Amino acid sequence: MSMFPEYWVRFETPEGPRQGYLEGDAIQPIKGDMFGLWRADGAPVPLGQSRLLAPVVPPTFYACGINYEGHWRTAAEEFGLDLEKSWPGSPEVGYRAQSAIVGPGDPIILPMDVPPNVQVEAELAVVIGRCCRHATPETAMDCIFGYTIANDVSARGWQFEDRTFWRSKNSDTFKPIGPWIRCGADLHAMETRVFVNDDLKERFATHRMIHSIADYIVAITRYITLVPGDVIIMGTDGHAPQMRPGDVVRIEIEGVGTLENPVIADRR
Amino acid sequence: MSMFPEYWVRFETPEGPRQGYLEGDAIQPIKGDMFGLWRADGAPVPLGQSRLLAPVVPPTFYACGINYEGHWRTAAEEFGLDLEKSWPGSPEVGYRAQSAIVGPGDPIILPMDVPPNVQVEAELAVVIGRCCRHATPETAMDCIFGYTIANDVSARGWQFEDRTFWRSKNSDTFKPIGPWIRCGADLHAMETRVFVNDDLKERFATHRMIHSIADYIVAITRYITLVPGDVIIMGTDGHAPQMRPGDVVRIEIEGVGTLENPVIADRR
Repeated sequence: MSMFPEYWVRFETPEGPRQGYLEGDAIQPIKGDMFGLWRADGAPVPLGQSRLLAPVVPPTFYACGINYEGHWRTAAEEFGLDLEKSWPGSPEVGYRAQSAIVGPGDPIILPMDVPPNVQVEAELAVVIGRCCRHATPETAMDCIFGYTIANDVSARGWQFEDRTFWRSKNSDTFKPIGPWIRCGADLHAMETRVFVNDDLKERFATHRMIHSIADYIVAITRYITLVPGDVIIMGTDGHAPQMRPGDVVRIEIEGVGTLENPVIADRR
Repeated sequence: MSMFPEYWVRFETPEGPRQGYLEGDAIQPIKGDMFGLWRADGAPVPLGQSRLLAPVVPPTFYACGINYEGHWRTAAEEFGLDLEKSWPGSPEVGYRAQSAIVGPGDPIILPMDVPPNVQVEAELAVVIGRCCRHATPETAMDCIFGYTIANDVSARGWQFEDRTFWRSKNSDTFKPIGPWIRCGADLHAMETRVFVNDDLKERFATHRMIHSIADYIVAITRYITLVPGDVIIMGTDGHAPQMRPGDVVRIEIEGVGTLENPVIADRR
């Protein structure tokens, strides 16, 4: 039996964010770094009395584009894209911004002037645990620390109006991540489910990607060094449901956890 | 006379990177954080005996697109873009990756299979010193800590072949930054000069941007919170000169400093 913890968290303390791991219903704080050297440090804190933060703040935050067949078809139809041209022929990454990250339970705040169609993209987030360059298909998965969940909130009006995804995907609070990092999960047993106000809006087999996680890691590390804490969000499938102020968005990935965030309107 | 240091550096020590400031020909190390609380700590280190690192590692690394008239015209012509369509009507940002950052003197390593036309983009880099949201034109410049220099190395073949700038602008070593952060510099007195092997290839008035630094800060902070250490690279002017293995690229910005990096071919 492995002694390595299965669930890693970051949580708020009066002294600032701390890392820890779950032991039953409690968080065991650590000293050191979950990706490197660490030891248990201090008394366990009841999970129910803690505010969890985004479990990782990636130095570089990678995002796969369209990476599931169902989303390829619905996105092309909904946004009037050419179906063939929007097919992702090879694994290429984009970037998301650290500035947009919030944690589980934190509100997704819709800017005053955001165009109405803001959508949930429920995505598996791969957390890197080791430096990796020039991975091969055989070694690629070895650099993974674990998995968490991301909501790649997307303001579609801005997405097609702007030259980049800056506002559409990176406005403050548009990148909820959490609730924790699950180590040792079985990707092939995962199912992703998206709920808005408890209504199931979409469900899909998490592993049925167009380009696999290993494909992406091989492609990225041909040119770029992945480092501990880097995150790659793997894309979503099917139709991305709309969210409105007052909604609560919940993303469940079987074997990983549940990420829930309320949606509110900015008052400024 | 202000006691606040004018030049801030990060430099290598056996215990890892440290921050410090220049005092004559020496680096005075600090304890704390240049963007917050700090005090001088330890003996000064001769600048000539130190390895300078990128002076800042931005949590979020923003990049303006085309932002000078000369570059707008030459880029449109060289890359066959529509001149009107490529005009940046409003300040919009893209992102660069932390993973690509190297420091002054570090080699720019061209991947084995990079298409031949790799270009220097000499850019002023704005370093943010304070949290900022909802800046106004009057307050925008108050959140700036200082300025440094970036080479926004761009592999043009990949830039137009890929869906994003991932390889073209973010391959390992493609974002040299440095040599230091200059505080209190006069933007309007700056001139940017680009040399390849001591040949002056381009020069321009650094401040003659299409959208000003304040314009960008106002636009970004309408949706996004800037935090200490964030960097915004402001674009380049004129023709971006080509670099080849064996070249040495030097970017001087009057009043800021000189960033020099050799170019080598990856052997793997």
